[in-house]
Amino acid sequence: MKKIISLSLLILGTIILSGQAKEDSLQFSRISTEILNNGKGYNELKELTKTIGHRLSGSEAYEKSVKWAEQKLRDAGADKVWLQEVIIPVWERGKESLHIKTSNGNWKSLKMLSLGNSEGIGGKDVSGEIIMVKSMEEYDKLPAEKVKGKIVFFNYPFNQAHIQTFIAYRDAGAYRRTAATLTAKKEGKFAIIRSLSSAFDDVPHTGAMRYEEGIPKVPAIAIGNTSADELENLLKMQNITAKLNSNCGMKGERRSYSVIGEITGKKDQDVIVVGGHLDSWDVGEGAHDDGAGIVQSIEVLRTFKKLRIENNHTIRVVCFANEENGTKGGKQYAKTAKENNEKHLFAIESDAGGFSPRGISLEMDDTRRNQIKSWINLFLPYGVYNFEGKYSGSDIAPLHEEGVPTAELVPDPQRYFDIHHTEEDTFEKVNRRELLLGSTVMTQLIYMIDKNW
Amino acid sequence: MKKIISLSLLILGTIILSGQAKEDSLQFSRISTEILNNGKGYNELKELTKTIGHRLSGSEAYEKSVKWAEQKLRDAGADKVWLQEVIIPVWERGKESLHIKTSNGNWKSLKMLSLGNSEGIGGKDVSGEIIMVKSMEEYDKLPAEKVKGKIVFFNYPFNQAHIQTFIAYRDAGAYRRTAATLTAKKEGKFAIIRSLSSAFDDVPHTGAMRYEEGIPKVPAIAIGNTSADELENLLKMQNITAKLNSNCGMKGERRSYSVIGEITGKKDQDVIVVGGHLDSWDVGEGAHDDGAGIVQSIEVLRTFKKLRIENNHTIRVVCFANEENGTKGGKQYAKTAKENNEKHLFAIESDAGGFSPRGISLEMDDTRRNQIKSWINLFLPYGVYNFEGKYSGSDIAPLHEEGVPTAELVPDPQRYFDIHHTEEDTFEKVNRRELLLGSTVMTQLIYMIDKNW
Repeated sequence: MKKIISLSLLILGTIILSGQAKEDSLQFSRISTEILNNGKGYNELKELTKTIGHRLSGSEAYEKSVKWAEQKLRDAGADKVWLQEVIIPVWERGKESLHIKTSNGNWKSLKMLSLGNSEGIGGKDVSGEIIMVKSMEEYDKLPAEKVKGKIVFFNYPFNQAHIQTFIAYRDAGAYRRTAATLTAKKEGKFAIIRSLSSAFDDVPHTGAMRYEEGIPKVPAIAIGNTSADELENLLKMQNITAKLNSNCGMKGERRSYSVIGEITGKKDQDVIVVGGHLDSWDVGEGAHDDGAGIVQSIEVLRTFKKLRIENNHTIRVVCFANEENGTKGGKQYAKTAKENNEKHLFAIESDAGGFSPRGISLEMDDTRRNQIKSWINLFLPYGVYNFEGKYSGSDIAPLHEEGVPTAELVPDPQRYFDIHHTEEDTFEKVNRRELLLGSTVMTQLIYMIDKNW
Repeated sequence: MKKIISLSLLILGTIILSGQAKEDSLQFSRISTEILNNGKGYNELKELTKTIGHRLSGSEAYEKSVKWAEQKLRDAGADKVWLQEVIIPVWERGKESLHIKTSNGNWKSLKMLSLGNSEGIGGKDVSGEIIMVKSMEEYDKLPAEKVKGKIVFFNYPFNQAHIQTFIAYRDAGAYRRTAATLTAKKEGKFAIIRSLSSAFDDVPHTGAMRYEEGIPKVPAIAIGNTSADELENLLKMQNITAKLNSNCGMKGERRSYSVIGEITGKKDQDVIVVGGHLDSWDVGEGAHDDGAGIVQSIEVLRTFKKLRIENNHTIRVVCFANEENGTKGGKQYAKTAKENNEKHLFAIESDAGGFSPRGISLEMDDTRRNQIKSWINLFLPYGVYNFEGKYSGSDIAPLHEEGVPTAELVPDPQRYFDIHHTEEDTFEKVNRRELLLGSTVMTQLIYMIDKNW
């Protein structure tokens, strides 16, 4: 019934707007034609991924990407470009390896990645027998003495049956976040998780984990799906010893920066934010996550300048620092905005991969939501039909907490978790047209909001 | 206004069907869960592409794919599998090369592909000065004496600004089909076209061309976008000589087969067809075009059997022969169906790549179209929202001419023309989840049609 009401509203909206809609439709088409023909985002992404590569917070590569983004915002025609200081945590991986010993007595190496923010074991070996559980419920039932001194393998699968892969990701994500602490509470030595991966391959996926205050910080690592399958099968038949060597850990804090550029509003200086995060995990090239969001956001600004669209309000691109392991950039941004008494009208983030856009997720009151939904006929020719999501990106969550209406670009979700947080998240996995369509849709939405809010 | 009416109908449909819709929604979910968890299409596509590879009509590889498809249909649980004889044209490429001579006197090789069905020059060299035109209109204005003895470069670009890439493909397709005949009519030696490609790379795209009756059969070849850019820039500054050596041509006809498998209807033997084409061009692996459509269609049959869905009508998978350079398989199928007085309720084809489905294009009367549209709320959770297309696949066009309602799966169109008819159309370009979602949506639609028609 809810759907029926919202469709009725949509029809009403269409009728009321029909005079205006024609002009907007022409502007949508100008934006799309400009970006698909002349967009620079794809080549910029190639630069970012191939000359800088992955760029974890605290790394020298991240600092290079700060300079790079500053320059690209100037090239795009920003009226003002600046760096916003952010104190970020520094985590380093170092060397690491995992071996298992089967009943024939041989050690075999498994591909693995320590989870981000995990402590290692100072470059020493730690070994023990593996105990496998399929779920938290199963683990909760295990008496502590059965876990003590063991290595816990949380063999919880990424649920392939979810059409919306982000649901499967969130579902399995609980294991990534908590496996270490759960293991430590029962005095296990370290935790292994099955990667949060939709791919049927052996690529391990890293990503942030957390330690619970006051609980020993045991290591947590991820293995790829085929290694997890192999381990699962072996464990059904025999006892397996695992040996981990790792050197990762937190190395204090560092002064770094988010990069910001804007075009000044012609009517007022109320702010519309479009952004992504400049940092990435320390594997692959951070192409879909989130180089795509960065170059798409810069493209929005460039397109406004290039097409000489008169923006009523200030349009600001924010390349957030430290989304992956601390979201310090997002927090600092909202804090500074509040201190400076800046009024933010709206913020949108692109942080779900540079795939064909399908929708815009809206985290805001129903009046604004319904207004945006009433524009659906303008967006449909661009493949954007889904305005049902009610979440937005983690970098702009602190802004939302201050009452700012926020949104996230919703690209096709089928391929993201094949490559997310892995060696495979490279430029080659990004398609030019898909990437540029994401910029197109964000530019179109900001054009509408700038004009109507 | 038209959109508003169809949305009203949709709402009405939803209200009327709401009791039934719940049961259907559960069946949709069973189908999706089965295919995403246990679908075999992705591994089957790997087999087809990696053990057989490309499979042009008339080649030994095509004959192998006939045996392969026969076996896969049996494995999927078809009640009956058979081969339908089709007399197909045989075209062979042979060796080929293109060189250009610039003002420094050196010859330089350009990557090229003869267009499919083009005649070559019997392995001899033919050379001449290149004359470039940007469009047919420009070519039409050229006096014949300016073309005589020359090589015509039809430098017409694939229009990147179209969101629906098939529109850009059809638009530029006129050059692929007619360049040779246009050239011959003004006594040019051969034609070069800019590939029908959305990629900014140097990969040439082949595809079918046609000769006009009574006009000399001069060769037609395609070059990649970056070679075309290079040639365009050179031609602005100097005269360029091109030299073609090619050996391709039609080599008569051959007896071959379409492969058919079906599960018998429980209520009657009226037929619902789901299919794709088994042949491919003679480059790459024919993975998206159209190995994807083949394995998706077989998956439909397997899923009906596996889930024990009682099919009222006969569900028939057709792996059509010779779509690429003759559509003899589709023509023969419709002819045989008519001769046998078979009643066909519906036919759907998947031949636009194994990408995430977005819609179903419907070529049928408005009553049936509106009924299918009324099911939109069932399809929306699977990302399928677009029922506005009014075309269907070329293999089932002859059935449609006999009055059969037809349809085509509409996948996301952004990546297809990067790789279509090229060396790059390989298994690695196919994503498991996207491919299986295509099978899911076709199974769901056939479930609904089988039940309601």
